[in-house]
Amino acid sequence: MRAAIFRNGDFVVDTLADPAPGNGQVLVKTLCCGICGTDLHAARYTDHFVERGRRAGGRLTMDPARDVVFGHEFCCDVVDYGPGTERRLKPGTLVCSMPMTLAGTTVQGIGYSNDIAGGFAQYMPLAERLLLEVPNGLPADKAALTEPIAVGWHAVQNARLTTDDVPLVIGCGPVGLSVIAALKIRNVHPIIAADFSPGRRALALRMGADEVVDPAKTSPYQSWHDAATPAGYDGSRYAQLFGSGPKQRPAVMFECVGVPGVIQQIIDGAPAGARLVVVGVCMETDRFEPFFGIMKQLNLQFVLAYTAEDFAASLHHIAEGRVDVTPLITGHVGLDGVKGAFDELANPERHAKIMVRPWE
Amino acid sequence: MRAAIFRNGDFVVDTLADPAPGNGQVLVKTLCCGICGTDLHAARYTDHFVERGRRAGGRLTMDPARDVVFGHEFCCDVVDYGPGTERRLKPGTLVCSMPMTLAGTTVQGIGYSNDIAGGFAQYMPLAERLLLEVPNGLPADKAALTEPIAVGWHAVQNARLTTDDVPLVIGCGPVGLSVIAALKIRNVHPIIAADFSPGRRALALRMGADEVVDPAKTSPYQSWHDAATPAGYDGSRYAQLFGSGPKQRPAVMFECVGVPGVIQQIIDGAPAGARLVVVGVCMETDRFEPFFGIMKQLNLQFVLAYTAEDFAASLHHIAEGRVDVTPLITGHVGLDGVKGAFDELANPERHAKIMVRPWE
Repeated sequence: MRAAIFRNGDFVVDTLADPAPGNGQVLVKTLCCGICGTDLHAARYTDHFVERGRRAGGRLTMDPARDVVFGHEFCCDVVDYGPGTERRLKPGTLVCSMPMTLAGTTVQGIGYSNDIAGGFAQYMPLAERLLLEVPNGLPADKAALTEPIAVGWHAVQNARLTTDDVPLVIGCGPVGLSVIAALKIRNVHPIIAADFSPGRRALALRMGADEVVDPAKTSPYQSWHDAATPAGYDGSRYAQLFGSGPKQRPAVMFECVGVPGVIQQIIDGAPAGARLVVVGVCMETDRFEPFFGIMKQLNLQFVLAYTAEDFAASLHHIAEGRVDVTPLITGHVGLDGVKGAFDELANPERHAKIMVRPWE
Repeated sequence: MRAAIFRNGDFVVDTLADPAPGNGQVLVKTLCCGICGTDLHAARYTDHFVERGRRAGGRLTMDPARDVVFGHEFCCDVVDYGPGTERRLKPGTLVCSMPMTLAGTTVQGIGYSNDIAGGFAQYMPLAERLLLEVPNGLPADKAALTEPIAVGWHAVQNARLTTDDVPLVIGCGPVGLSVIAALKIRNVHPIIAADFSPGRRALALRMGADEVVDPAKTSPYQSWHDAATPAGYDGSRYAQLFGSGPKQRPAVMFECVGVPGVIQQIIDGAPAGARLVVVGVCMETDRFEPFFGIMKQLNLQFVLAYTAEDFAASLHHIAEGRVDVTPLITGHVGLDGVKGAFDELANPERHAKIMVRPWE
């Protein structure tokens, strides 16, 4: 099969042996696979990515001296079956899966593995029991966005939302846009979103933000305050102790940037009692001021990926029209275009998701 | 009145004008007042304390160029009444109060104020509506510990405890001991507590810890793991995905040290899904690794002080015998002994709480 291989720090298109489906595995053709921000990080800062992945427990480890085929946001169709499968989905069935496969009781990650090629190759050996049939005739490129949508859905599911909350989303890259989509599904408004890029702010509005903020001009925290604070609100300590009168609505703030300093910026800007959900993946050592978190009694919830339930729910949210992922898809490439797409994605004005089609 | 005054960076005993109770205020005699770790910080690192207090919103501000009388863990008796009071508590009634008073609708903090002397002076003008009568004949020195016990009770109330949790308390100074007492009241066991000091570990056992750990010899996180992990537990990713079999009990870990690096140490040691409650007050800039928090999907709850309900509940916990504060009281001094007591408290083997009696 053909694959866009990350080899010696660069992308090359080359031929690899077709995978043979093992026990309980189904061979699938990869129709479409999105490029993720984590892929960009792994390609640009490979040694750092590998070192951090190892220190954090090994789920993202790969040996950069060996070939790796990235790609973990995919939609496929069923081609063939390994031994010990139930063959419950016919050949040609459109399927999604969390980016992992099973070899007996060993879970193998897909996307940063030296042993199993990810979605930037033409075939994968997926675990039959993890396959989800794509419903409602949803096309493959939209179904492939199940994975990034599941990231936002999972973050929002772990935010302990109430319908009275006023959410603020810091950063409108694919992670922030996915969080916005999930907040819209959960019907928590107004959704305020901040990004320095006009292109991303426009996407945020299309994905469901009610108000967007350019942090170069307006403080997102001031915008949050204006939206969450009723007329006649008394923020004095006396009112907090003996309070009557209107209350400020609760704050839930999503960190969707993932660079050092942003968590402390939110700690500085958040009101007392705010819940912070850290979705952006900061792989650097960061600095913060615990005292300020303490004075405000903040809560920080770190989140990662999704559960199997979140993943399945996200596919259905897309297929049943609760989220329209169309605005997220800003480009398509074949395997030969992967290298260029990684360069293009550095520009936030031009792109959100570039989808790789390994058969084009 | 006599007072131990913090003046020009040192303690002196001097005479101040007796406070006159204002509208809604009751004049009380201070019978007993504990010395808090925050007092030690304010006395030793005054400029830093003031700068941090201002940056964090001003509840702990004081002007160190002017006299300050510390002391915010007190028990008093009623002496006289200002105008506009209901006089619902007779002279001689033993009372506690959160460390603040009211001037109209202005809340004035007690303990780090240049305008109102705290508990290391003989009289205070407390707010009648904040007074709590000490029940059950509880002596003043024990009632004065309502404040530090309320800190632990508040932390535990905000930990989203379940009875299945296995708690780990890092640091057994007064804050950690108070958390242990609160966990015992909530009946969550086993309570594992860690401190380098043998004296503090002994106190932890007396306050309700089921197991104490010397981190110089044993990892507290390994001790937690041994206590929380049932025989036959399968921690593999496969079991996490499709898990049957026994589960590891949930982790709730209390940071009760308040120095840089401890939060990251707990992030490193905690199991996936752990809740961290940050009770220790770290006033330095700290460093942490968001990525490791993300990989484990940790939750950090910063807490501060207590609500009025927590404070009242804590007084009743002590008065009704649900917590025995006797082991915490390791010394008594008069006003002349305050300076020496601040020096003595640097030694964790010798002391937990030294109580100041302004009339002795």
